[in-house]
Amino acid sequence: MARRHLEIDIPALGAIDRGQGGLGRQLADALRSAITKGELKAGERLPSTRVLADSLSLSRGTVTGAYEQLIAEGCLDAKAGSSTCVASGLRESAIAVRGLPGKPASPMPSLPASASRYGAIADRLTQLPSVPFSVAVPEGEVAMDEHWRRLGNRVRASQAAAPSGYADPQGLLALREAIADYLRRARAVRCGPENIIITEGTQQGLYLSSKVLLAPGDVAWAEDPAYPGLISVLEDRGARVHRVPVDTQGLDLASAIAACPDAKAAFVTPSHQYPMGMPLSMPRRLALLEWARRHGSWIVEDDYDSELRYAGQPFPAMQGLDSDRVVYLGTFSKVLAPSLRLGYAVVPERLTKAFAGARALMGRGSPSAEQHVIAAYMKEGYFETHIRRIRGIYAERRQVLMDTLRSELPELRIQPADQGMHIVAWLPEGLNDVAITSAAANTGIALRALSPMCSGNPQLSGLMLGFGGFSAGQLQDAVKRLHRVLNEFTHRTRR
Amino acid sequence: MARRHLEIDIPALGAIDRGQGGLGRQLADALRSAITKGELKAGERLPSTRVLADSLSLSRGTVTGAYEQLIAEGCLDAKAGSSTCVASGLRESAIAVRGLPGKPASPMPSLPASASRYGAIADRLTQLPSVPFSVAVPEGEVAMDEHWRRLGNRVRASQAAAPSGYADPQGLLALREAIADYLRRARAVRCGPENIIITEGTQQGLYLSSKVLLAPGDVAWAEDPAYPGLISVLEDRGARVHRVPVDTQGLDLASAIAACPDAKAAFVTPSHQYPMGMPLSMPRRLALLEWARRHGSWIVEDDYDSELRYAGQPFPAMQGLDSDRVVYLGTFSKVLAPSLRLGYAVVPERLTKAFAGARALMGRGSPSAEQHVIAAYMKEGYFETHIRRIRGIYAERRQVLMDTLRSELPELRIQPADQGMHIVAWLPEGLNDVAITSAAANTGIALRALSPMCSGNPQLSGLMLGFGGFSAGQLQDAVKRLHRVLNEFTHRTRR
Repeated sequence: MARRHLEIDIPALGAIDRGQGGLGRQLADALRSAITKGELKAGERLPSTRVLADSLSLSRGTVTGAYEQLIAEGCLDAKAGSSTCVASGLRESAIAVRGLPGKPASPMPSLPASASRYGAIADRLTQLPSVPFSVAVPEGEVAMDEHWRRLGNRVRASQAAAPSGYADPQGLLALREAIADYLRRARAVRCGPENIIITEGTQQGLYLSSKVLLAPGDVAWAEDPAYPGLISVLEDRGARVHRVPVDTQGLDLASAIAACPDAKAAFVTPSHQYPMGMPLSMPRRLALLEWARRHGSWIVEDDYDSELRYAGQPFPAMQGLDSDRVVYLGTFSKVLAPSLRLGYAVVPERLTKAFAGARALMGRGSPSAEQHVIAAYMKEGYFETHIRRIRGIYAERRQVLMDTLRSELPELRIQPADQGMHIVAWLPEGLNDVAITSAAANTGIALRALSPMCSGNPQLSGLMLGFGGFSAGQLQDAVKRLHRVLNEFTHRTRR
Repeated sequence: MARRHLEIDIPALGAIDRGQGGLGRQLADALRSAITKGELKAGERLPSTRVLADSLSLSRGTVTGAYEQLIAEGCLDAKAGSSTCVASGLRESAIAVRGLPGKPASPMPSLPASASRYGAIADRLTQLPSVPFSVAVPEGEVAMDEHWRRLGNRVRASQAAAPSGYADPQGLLALREAIADYLRRARAVRCGPENIIITEGTQQGLYLSSKVLLAPGDVAWAEDPAYPGLISVLEDRGARVHRVPVDTQGLDLASAIAACPDAKAAFVTPSHQYPMGMPLSMPRRLALLEWARRHGSWIVEDDYDSELRYAGQPFPAMQGLDSDRVVYLGTFSKVLAPSLRLGYAVVPERLTKAFAGARALMGRGSPSAEQHVIAAYMKEGYFETHIRRIRGIYAERRQVLMDTLRSELPELRIQPADQGMHIVAWLPEGLNDVAITSAAANTGIALRALSPMCSGNPQLSGLMLGFGGFSAGQLQDAVKRLHRVLNEFTHRTRR
């Protein structure tokens, strides 16, 4: 059908497409667009609904509906009688604003200062691809088994775990009960469900702790080296960060007390120093607690992979020695999967409401369905069975990686440790860990360099090598690739 | 069996329970506890492993293992020859700390100032029980149907959605694609998947926006009344909040520009003012955008329940008019369920990395499985079908509530609005909405008072009445209960 001649001159109306349906909406959109662009001027009179309906071969009801919509929006005015005009006030407010002092309108607002700061954090916390030696890839043999999936389907089908309304930002009570039971038994943590806040994992536990325990300008101790996500959190809080070196017994407490005794909180990894791996010795633990008592300070105990210990028994948690001063952080990312984004903070009862409030402020709490699933998984005993199973597999893989490194790359010094999902290998002098990490990315292996985790003095050059998600063959192959990368750098350095 | 006489005097060892298993661990725990409590002193010599094993009827290997554990922890020292002593350095560090200046050890650290602030936020953001007139209770007829559950099981069983490693903090690409498609069509939002950040819902969208767009001390506009979670977010950021009154056309822009033109950002609810319900008129929208252009300011458009419109067509999103200056926030809480904790922010491309970094800092991103499920639910068309279905049900329930209120409680003035999951009812003069809300809680109905959402000048007294999750019968019954509560207050006021 040939397009009809329009009695009125509104070019935007030519865009109406009868094949698309929603003609009333198309008409309203076209008129609105013509008005906001100034093609139709304030006060200009529109054709009657009958005339426009005829022109466009639309029903009169369609046109009336579009006019009413635009009248409701304030784009059109219905005058006495039946005529309809473009609203006279429409651009007046905008014009009034133009008359005000201020810079001329700019095509783009300036970027806030935070944009580059948070952009840098995005880089710092980027996930690695799922290739060796990335940490925490629960695939294949170490993935949760069929029980997890079947139990999940069953739990989600129940009324309790079906999609529902807002819930307690502290987290699901059944899950908090299961976690409290587990932590009392496995980690000697003194707690009940009332002490537990469900988090999105350790990162969120650190974020919440810094928010509740610190004010901007407060001093916080962090280990050197430390988890980069912690340093980002403390800097974001506006805390003054005092980096405390570590030695074979963990955090060098004497140096921290000598240099900076008045910290408001100490953020520590006592069971397995991140990333080095040594536990904090018992004398240091007692001294750290004594310092906290004297100075009215808090201790944040990040116990991120204590479940995965391959020799001896784990130290009990520091929280069990003084549950009034210690905030204890745990995560399901290491023993179940990072994609669940679930972990927990155990906090003194006087702080639970503050932690719950801070959690609510950031997003009202974690989704509920998966909390029900993990609670059931723990209660029915699958959780601890799963941990025992993967601990055995991880121990074997770790041994394969250590043996292969020792035979293929004897020049690397392996940091002694008997826990966790990664090992630390120190590079021979002169090799830059960041450069090697970049080069390795192109050969299909994923490394984390240690030097960015250090404050810079003394500079360490080493690599974090995760082994958890990979078979013996994958690990052996990856060590060969690492060998080639290192060879290239060694030759380059010698030349 | 009678307890054997112990050759050595360590009372804690009496607590070892042979019925419990884990004897090596029990022994280590008992010795450690005796040492940390001072029952065993530094330098004190322990019995040989043979003697202790005999005394306690344990195998020698068990005792050796416990000693080795405690030596590793630094609690015991192995001397030359075979004797083992309590480590001499054990309490020295603690004692050294005691010698330092500082307050005497206190039984409890002082509460941080934030504790009461976040405690108050916990109260402000408390969820209501699932009874009328709570908002957003997706139960019964309005719950997601069997498709949701079956699709969920199918999607989670696939390799892609199985538990896995860390992921992009910006969110799952497939979900961001589905959301971008939907928003372009349904809300005229100009975006691609690269502009979208998956959030935990509107609360997190507001939190992220304030973190990225504002620095402490910056001025932000918020409507008056406004969503309490927004005010908490802005105060937490350290922003200076300028409250802008609303009238029948929404935000009173002229007053805001006259009183406080230099705001860094305006937080607005253009499609359905929270909690009043009027849309922001087109002239005001254009003027708001013009103001933002002149002042280099950002607009945060909270479009929290735009899908639920019962008359006419919705205004298109403001974001579509200037996607360089507007951060658009949406949520799945209203149309699917709050317990999913999923929503989205649409941000100018220059800000996506900053938003992703801020999201990573707070917890590394949302869990992945449910993102896969929603992506599939949207792609397969169930999402829009579900919205159409619940919109019809909500429209009926809303009508029931309005009719019942008009006949039973004609003294309440109902705020005109044609969108959303709640209606606003103004109380007759002299009735205090907070007191009525408290009293109503004891009669099995849940209300939100409006006055706490206002800056206080002028004071409004009214109630938010959610209708979404309740049948006609439940709503009618709840209005009767409300009637009784109001009657009591009216009589009390008259006396």
